[in-house]
Amino acid sequence: MKTIQYDELLKLTHDLLVNALGYREEEAAITARVLVEADARGIPSHGVSRLDLYQKNLRGGFAKTGVEPEIVFETPSSLVIDGHDGIGSYIADYAVQKTIHKAQHAGSAFCAVRNSNHYGIAGFWAERIAAYAMIGSAFTNTRTCAIPTFGRERVLGTNPLAIAIPEDDERCFLLDMATTTVSHGKIEVYDRRSQPMPAGWAVDAEGVGTTDATAFEKIFYENERYGGHLFLGGEGEETGGHKGFGLGLLVELLCSGLSLGMSSLETFVPGQGSGITHFFGAIRLDLFGPPDALKKHLKAILDTIRQGQKASGQARIYIHGEKEAEARERSLREGIPLDDATCALLEKLRHA
Amino acid sequence: MKTIQYDELLKLTHDLLVNALGYREEEAAITARVLVEADARGIPSHGVSRLDLYQKNLRGGFAKTGVEPEIVFETPSSLVIDGHDGIGSYIADYAVQKTIHKAQHAGSAFCAVRNSNHYGIAGFWAERIAAYAMIGSAFTNTRTCAIPTFGRERVLGTNPLAIAIPEDDERCFLLDMATTTVSHGKIEVYDRRSQPMPAGWAVDAEGVGTTDATAFEKIFYENERYGGHLFLGGEGEETGGHKGFGLGLLVELLCSGLSLGMSSLETFVPGQGSGITHFFGAIRLDLFGPPDALKKHLKAILDTIRQGQKASGQARIYIHGEKEAEARERSLREGIPLDDATCALLEKLRHA
Repeated sequence: MKTIQYDELLKLTHDLLVNALGYREEEAAITARVLVEADARGIPSHGVSRLDLYQKNLRGGFAKTGVEPEIVFETPSSLVIDGHDGIGSYIADYAVQKTIHKAQHAGSAFCAVRNSNHYGIAGFWAERIAAYAMIGSAFTNTRTCAIPTFGRERVLGTNPLAIAIPEDDERCFLLDMATTTVSHGKIEVYDRRSQPMPAGWAVDAEGVGTTDATAFEKIFYENERYGGHLFLGGEGEETGGHKGFGLGLLVELLCSGLSLGMSSLETFVPGQGSGITHFFGAIRLDLFGPPDALKKHLKAILDTIRQGQKASGQARIYIHGEKEAEARERSLREGIPLDDATCALLEKLRHA
Repeated sequence: MKTIQYDELLKLTHDLLVNALGYREEEAAITARVLVEADARGIPSHGVSRLDLYQKNLRGGFAKTGVEPEIVFETPSSLVIDGHDGIGSYIADYAVQKTIHKAQHAGSAFCAVRNSNHYGIAGFWAERIAAYAMIGSAFTNTRTCAIPTFGRERVLGTNPLAIAIPEDDERCFLLDMATTTVSHGKIEVYDRRSQPMPAGWAVDAEGVGTTDATAFEKIFYENERYGGHLFLGGEGEETGGHKGFGLGLLVELLCSGLSLGMSSLETFVPGQGSGITHFFGAIRLDLFGPPDALKKHLKAILDTIRQGQKASGQARIYIHGEKEAEARERSLREGIPLDDATCALLEKLRHA
């Protein structure tokens, strides 16, 4: 573990993207920003350690540098973009800028994107829209890993959703969540420790709930179809697993459906682009009244929640986005922590 | 248990609303429709049994008949409505009609509503918008009953969300869910049977997870602040309870926040209207291309999910809204089942 200054990691990541991966300057600039933001916010699973995946995606032909996104359909308040298998963050940046611009004129705007690639943390894009005094949202499908309620076949991705609502000029409520119970990295931790994982995270190849992280990892990598992540709410309907599945499916319909793009099941087929799809939304706060009055009211509601009585042994109720914003402040002050594996990856790419 | 024909129950409910509760004809017509639709779809908790609650709300001064909703703010693609403590379904009907009309001209439209009342099943309103080849959404806050992650005080309601996306000319994907793990009725069933309820449904007055349904019911009714429902994902963060809490809080910010209305915590204060708030959204499908091509693609994605391999012992993967649509067809064919308590309530109101 070592720590590195934000600007230093940003420059290093940018240079590695250009020199080791062959990104154009403009692709590297936004990609480095999104990755370093994830590390700074305490989300290392989506940080610069992704350079490994990004390199594999380029080598596998799933992603290409030097490609421009194309608007294939538009109205005054909407657009559909074909990313032509380009760099995910570069495509998302283009889509989000166009969406914000249209919302500034039309009041709200929505954008569906097909043939894109991994765009980093969804919250980055939702928050960027919210910075314009809008309600920002960002959705994406992913490589398949998740199982519908009563199923056993991986037909959907972790399908995260992010929604940002401005609270004041500095902060926003930022819900950024996989619609599955957990991301894969959390299961890997239990496997490495040979410990049982909590119920409600995953099912085996028969579609039956399992807490055996090591057996699950074997199943997950030995076959491409059966056994996988459960959606939020866990197995079956008793604890609401069908609700989480519904949220994951909603994300799929918005991203793959409205872009006329590939479904999660069709992503990452060898010989073609990854086929990842996104959806973005921007709704101006002043559609509902004077933004300052609205922010004041939104803040008052959030303060009520913050001030609610705590559970036994708990000191704080966290509003969504607070932990990440505080981690970011700490990172700017004290540097960004990087684990040994990530440091080794950066070193390897530097000498590639 | 008896069964009753749809049209007969509709007329009976309408007449009871007018004669026993004092609703105006136009208030009774839409309210009867929403309640009977819930019974027909197999959601009796939100059906005509609610007449009891609606009568109590009138008597308690939380709701009033004979009041018209008022537009207090609007733009070409948005409006804020003050319901002036009128009848919830009547206000929602007005809001949804206005929202659809604006979306037909602007492409999309959004509506925040304050000082309303219970509007029945959220899915009814989302689906109504979807019938116009739009993505329909409906959100509402409710009386407080739910506990944030790491809290012990009821500061939010069950805060349901509903989103409908057309699949073909007949059907839509219809996700209609409380953001809490379960509604209160499910806990009552375990209490009546003196059985432990599943983990992840509720916490006690200390904010600690409990499976003792009988003890929980006592806590829930003996004090107004501590102990209550958990959000989807259950207790703490391990199984994603903070995600469900985030969804409930999102609903609160959209409804109470954007309407400048009361938060869940401020609802149902004696001496004033209930203060319930809603939010509706309508986004035209043709913002993203030819609706027929989009529906065909959405249907293809849903069919892939339907055809996925089933878990051991399971025969079917349900798309959201299918169970309810099939129950509705059965009800139209065979009559709507009403339990004894509901029959007795209707009888009592008829002789009031």
